[in-house]
Amino acid sequence: MSGATYDAAGVSIEAGDAAVQRIKPLVRSTFRPEVLGDIGSFGGLFALSNRYRDPVLVSTTDGVGTKAMVASAAGRFDTIGIDLVAMCVDDLVCQGAEPLFFLDYVSIGRLEPDMIERLVGGVAEGCRQAGCALIGGEMAEHPGAMGAGEFDLVGFAVGVVERSEILDGSRVEPGQALVGLASPGLRSNGYSLARHVLFERAGRRLDDPAWPEPGAPTVADELLRPSVIYAPTVAAIAGQVQVNGVAHITGGGIGGNLNRALNAHTDAVVASDSWRRPRIFDELARLGDIEAAEMAKVFNLGIGMVVVVGPDDVETAVAVAADHGVEAWAIGTTVAGTGQVQLR
Amino acid sequence: MSGATYDAAGVSIEAGDAAVQRIKPLVRSTFRPEVLGDIGSFGGLFALSNRYRDPVLVSTTDGVGTKAMVASAAGRFDTIGIDLVAMCVDDLVCQGAEPLFFLDYVSIGRLEPDMIERLVGGVAEGCRQAGCALIGGEMAEHPGAMGAGEFDLVGFAVGVVERSEILDGSRVEPGQALVGLASPGLRSNGYSLARHVLFERAGRRLDDPAWPEPGAPTVADELLRPSVIYAPTVAAIAGQVQVNGVAHITGGGIGGNLNRALNAHTDAVVASDSWRRPRIFDELARLGDIEAAEMAKVFNLGIGMVVVVGPDDVETAVAVAADHGVEAWAIGTTVAGTGQVQLR
Repeated sequence: MSGATYDAAGVSIEAGDAAVQRIKPLVRSTFRPEVLGDIGSFGGLFALSNRYRDPVLVSTTDGVGTKAMVASAAGRFDTIGIDLVAMCVDDLVCQGAEPLFFLDYVSIGRLEPDMIERLVGGVAEGCRQAGCALIGGEMAEHPGAMGAGEFDLVGFAVGVVERSEILDGSRVEPGQALVGLASPGLRSNGYSLARHVLFERAGRRLDDPAWPEPGAPTVADELLRPSVIYAPTVAAIAGQVQVNGVAHITGGGIGGNLNRALNAHTDAVVASDSWRRPRIFDELARLGDIEAAEMAKVFNLGIGMVVVVGPDDVETAVAVAADHGVEAWAIGTTVAGTGQVQLR
Repeated sequence: MSGATYDAAGVSIEAGDAAVQRIKPLVRSTFRPEVLGDIGSFGGLFALSNRYRDPVLVSTTDGVGTKAMVASAAGRFDTIGIDLVAMCVDDLVCQGAEPLFFLDYVSIGRLEPDMIERLVGGVAEGCRQAGCALIGGEMAEHPGAMGAGEFDLVGFAVGVVERSEILDGSRVEPGQALVGLASPGLRSNGYSLARHVLFERAGRRLDDPAWPEPGAPTVADELLRPSVIYAPTVAAIAGQVQVNGVAHITGGGIGGNLNRALNAHTDAVVASDSWRRPRIFDELARLGDIEAAEMAKVFNLGIGMVVVVGPDDVETAVAVAADHGVEAWAIGTTVAGTGQVQLR
């Protein structure tokens, strides 16, 4: 029996080095002037501009849930990184922050440089869309714990906001308007239920049409549709009109997220028929016999972000969103209340 | 067939809410005055002191590798979070940064509030040791992808350093001294090899003695020994003497990490017999018939951190470390060279 080595134990340092070489140009493509040093130091360095009087750092971490399992099953690794960035940076803008930098963590059953390049390529694309620098990351090979094509992606984002500009619900008042930004698909939430319904209950396969209609996307296309990154759109709206609150619609749906942008004396009333609901949600409800309340709790139902503006600013907000390629609708109003979301 | 729900699909929102309630006091126990708001907002808020003239943010992400699998197998979840914090914050101090805040990501097969409480309790303990605030985190339930007692932990740390104080290798000169800080165990590196050797080659079980001697720790005790968090010790040394470089010894060993603290005209010469090597490393080498070069590449061999100081400052550095409960040794010197580490 020959001596044990790390490689024989399933961890390939050489494959890791090869993967690092492949992702270097992708990572550098995201750099902003504030990034110091280069890849390979112990930590990522980001010089904070001194234009802030009283800077508050805002940070968040998130993953892509079991959307990763769909990507594994479909062997499509190039856009799930966009979803990861969306999940993180779009939480930052809810508190008024500008995304500055991002780090990713990839755990993988067997480190394949090509797969890593695609995964991190998606992260880099997301960072470019969000305008933040990808300044660090980690690849962890977990032989035994995961199969060869399996992976998990975790992201961390840091942004900055002037203390006086933090969105904390205090600017929300009765009589304001809710502008909903369109989500063309599931984003990264509700995948355990969607997979259960589509694959276990309905017996669909990834390359089946997502619904019975000529020209329908495949189940894989629909489930792997990249998340919209709203941060630049929200920043552009805030550049034109006063934004009073922002809510990123993730797990918990509109009801479980919009409340976080409110305060104790204001409710939000949302008209559920005020936007175009993507077909996939109707298919899921139908195939899974899912009650409307459960659908609204688990899925975004076509609204990925809600921005609270003054009633006279709706038109401008919708137009700015359109300029950024994001459809938007007036989906409700705020009224006197207790911090609840009323879905109607 | 009744309608599908998220809970039936394996994701328990109620268990998640229960876990959040349990970890709230743990998380709050780490707060520093700079933390704004409380748990439950979209992002964690940290007000950056304005005492910095030219602040540079340093950030890092890391996991605990397959040490998590040992913790799962042993059913011991309360200290692996300390390892997580150690892996992250001790990278920050290599660039001269003070750790400010931390976020954790827990992915888990089945969300059990008690297990989450232990895992996050370890993270909070690590954050208190490191002096950084735990200001955010995410729990992801991955039914199907992981078994009930399986988990992965990912950490993310942000620190700050004055631009003029960044450790980038430029202060290292020939004739300086290498002070090694003791690591009593494997830290979080080399676990795939250690598990392979102990469990597959040697057929050991978790509750077997780690070596054949009365009073020996069990394999589980030895493999789950919490990582020392060196950040406060390094900061204390830097408060007493000039620190020219710092290297966190993780995967790659001394040779693969100390080089990152050097510059292109200086080598480090390390005397491998200059510190007390913990018994576990000898056992691993013996049981696995692992060559010395492979041992040095995979494991820390008893040195978890190397601090480069002036030759006259060694005594002070060692004494300060002792004050923090960390044994330290002069383990070598720097000489004219090309940025290489010479292990002798």
